[in-house]
Amino acid sequence: MDGTTADAMALIVQKYGGTSVGNVERIKNVAERVLRSHGQGDQIVVVLSAMSGETDRLVALARAISAAPDPREMDLLLSTGERVTVALLALALRERGVLAQSFTGRQVGILTDDAHTRARILSITADRLKRALAAGQIPVVAGFQGMNGNADVTTLGRGGSDTTAVALAAALSADRCDIYTDVDGVYTADPNVAASARQIAKISYEEMLEMSSLGAKVLQARSVAFAMKYRVPVWVRSSFNDHEGTLVTGEDKEMEQEVVSAVTSDKNQAKITLVGVPDRSGIASHIFGAVARENILVDMIIQNIGQGGLTDLSFTVARGDADRTQEVLAGIAEEMKIKQIVVTANIAKVSIVGLGMRSHTGVAARMFEVLATEGINILMIATSEIKLSCVIDAKYTELAVRALHDAFHLGAASA
Amino acid sequence: MDGTTADAMALIVQKYGGTSVGNVERIKNVAERVLRSHGQGDQIVVVLSAMSGETDRLVALARAISAAPDPREMDLLLSTGERVTVALLALALRERGVLAQSFTGRQVGILTDDAHTRARILSITADRLKRALAAGQIPVVAGFQGMNGNADVTTLGRGGSDTTAVALAAALSADRCDIYTDVDGVYTADPNVAASARQIAKISYEEMLEMSSLGAKVLQARSVAFAMKYRVPVWVRSSFNDHEGTLVTGEDKEMEQEVVSAVTSDKNQAKITLVGVPDRSGIASHIFGAVARENILVDMIIQNIGQGGLTDLSFTVARGDADRTQEVLAGIAEEMKIKQIVVTANIAKVSIVGLGMRSHTGVAARMFEVLATEGINILMIATSEIKLSCVIDAKYTELAVRALHDAFHLGAASA
Repeated sequence: MDGTTADAMALIVQKYGGTSVGNVERIKNVAERVLRSHGQGDQIVVVLSAMSGETDRLVALARAISAAPDPREMDLLLSTGERVTVALLALALRERGVLAQSFTGRQVGILTDDAHTRARILSITADRLKRALAAGQIPVVAGFQGMNGNADVTTLGRGGSDTTAVALAAALSADRCDIYTDVDGVYTADPNVAASARQIAKISYEEMLEMSSLGAKVLQARSVAFAMKYRVPVWVRSSFNDHEGTLVTGEDKEMEQEVVSAVTSDKNQAKITLVGVPDRSGIASHIFGAVARENILVDMIIQNIGQGGLTDLSFTVARGDADRTQEVLAGIAEEMKIKQIVVTANIAKVSIVGLGMRSHTGVAARMFEVLATEGINILMIATSEIKLSCVIDAKYTELAVRALHDAFHLGAASA
Repeated sequence: MDGTTADAMALIVQKYGGTSVGNVERIKNVAERVLRSHGQGDQIVVVLSAMSGETDRLVALARAISAAPDPREMDLLLSTGERVTVALLALALRERGVLAQSFTGRQVGILTDDAHTRARILSITADRLKRALAAGQIPVVAGFQGMNGNADVTTLGRGGSDTTAVALAAALSADRCDIYTDVDGVYTADPNVAASARQIAKISYEEMLEMSSLGAKVLQARSVAFAMKYRVPVWVRSSFNDHEGTLVTGEDKEMEQEVVSAVTSDKNQAKITLVGVPDRSGIASHIFGAVARENILVDMIIQNIGQGGLTDLSFTVARGDADRTQEVLAGIAEEMKIKQIVVTANIAKVSIVGLGMRSHTGVAARMFEVLATEGINILMIATSEIKLSCVIDAKYTELAVRALHDAFHLGAASA
């Protein structure tokens, strides 16, 4: 190989989601797509999810046996889905005459921490991957999984295959990471909710990170954080057509001109309110320490002004964690003299995201005004430099998204 | 723990087959059964197969993608089935309040050779298993799988979970290995074929090894070889009742009194005939060397008397290997000046097995007479000290089994 060829050749990590590998025909289509990229002279590393529906099937089996299944066993169980698809795609590629080989998370050296079902990647050796690429192979890597220091299988949480793909792209210093999914890219809002939603051509890591954290399902938030840290250009595109998709990349001047880039919503929320908490120092750290030890992520926190030495404390968690959170707190409620624990499940978080919010005033006031006009009560508020979130009654979610999408002129008609 | 308790406590490896863990209810039943044994004070190691039908489902997926799927990919694919069942049983046991933990073949240190889809166990460390037992846990081990020196997943062939169980029993110096299946034990013939077939209370390793090799599906032959080598007492019993089952053990006086212990049949056979092979030295080693390099097991071999420097050579292989054998031989036929390769698939092997055959004459003559009386032509014959096999037209299989079972008085009525 001479220098010219080496310069022209790109290393691309391609990740295909569950719907893209949902059956034998679709797996064959992915093989064709991988071959086309490979035929253009690029080096390709493929990362796959499990067949769509497979993870749910396995979860249902586990839940039929145990109401609160052990996380270590869940990880072994759930990691099988990706092992099936990578073996099948490797077979499909080999059937087409190319050297392809499957690899598990362990085999590409993805070492994680011990937080089963939501493990974080600690390091990636990728030695076998590099050797496979050097030998002209197309490695097909099982997404979503790694191994902890105890040689047990771990998984990276829902959407973890995105993180596998971006992390491998970073470890291999790949030129880019393509995330193939069943939508054409990143939208200004969920098109199923806001009919005028528009696909975004280019978006900053920062905005995408907020959007993913705030309920946009197109990329796992951790994968965006990885991409931002290691400056991996990420393309989100459809595996069913050849549209260009959305580029997630470092921010530029152009991006900052948009005050609000997108509206997101997240119904996977529950509010926990502790009524009558003694208002003294150390209480909050005791409460949230107990919750954190259970690996439960707390999102928003609000503490009301105390009266008579007592205060109310509200916070939100993922809806699936609500019961476990309640159990944890019930265990320490007496000792801490907390009067009551109230769980509200039917809430949602509606958010607006945009780099331009940093330099524009009045965005928050406009959001509150829009929600008030629709008669939607705001239960909690959280802000960052580039996002604004309101917790509302879940039944108003779609109404709120449409109203905000219109009010901030995000639709195709007004673009 | 005092000395008395330690003496009384047994270490038992229990293996449950695919039908025993075929759905959630059955997995719960297995958990109850394991708990009962554990409650009696014994240490239990559980080995599981995949849910019945799962391996076939995965094979069908692979075949829909590739006519001749790569063995390394097949192993990754097929090894997922046992990973699902061990996670689910560990959950079921934990749900019942006992410490249980799943382990993969790799995690219990099952190192195999590189012969994907039919790997042989080279060594077992079982360190984690010993630690788990010492900690009072019930380890639940994925059968059928190991890891080769390249850190790739390998599988041990159909029925390989039996071998995992017996090999672990040997590695742990277990007191016994219980193979739970969907039949009550080992029979004098397939009860579906010979209605008078009788369950055998006790059988020697040698006879069981022959029977497994000759088509009795109740135990994988390799597992019996392991048991014989390491003198592991094996109980074959049903997971659906509490019958005693069949003990496979070292031979004793009593056993030798039976001239013929059982009749077996195997339709998974194909005959390859090479017509017009030059009759010179080195030819056979060339032919069978080429076949062996493809990891194809050759069973019976017959060479006809040569005429005019040419000879005919026939041998049998598993029916699934017939096409691949033909391909291998077609590749060398020209070079070796072989005139023709004929594959006959519709054949079967019918065998009688018994320790007493060593000291009784006339058994072979009786077998040939029985088959002749039924008008069944014998195509090939193979003998060992304790077995006699005849290859016949497959359509006569059941007739032959019944006739032999009656002729050697194996039925319940004549017992």
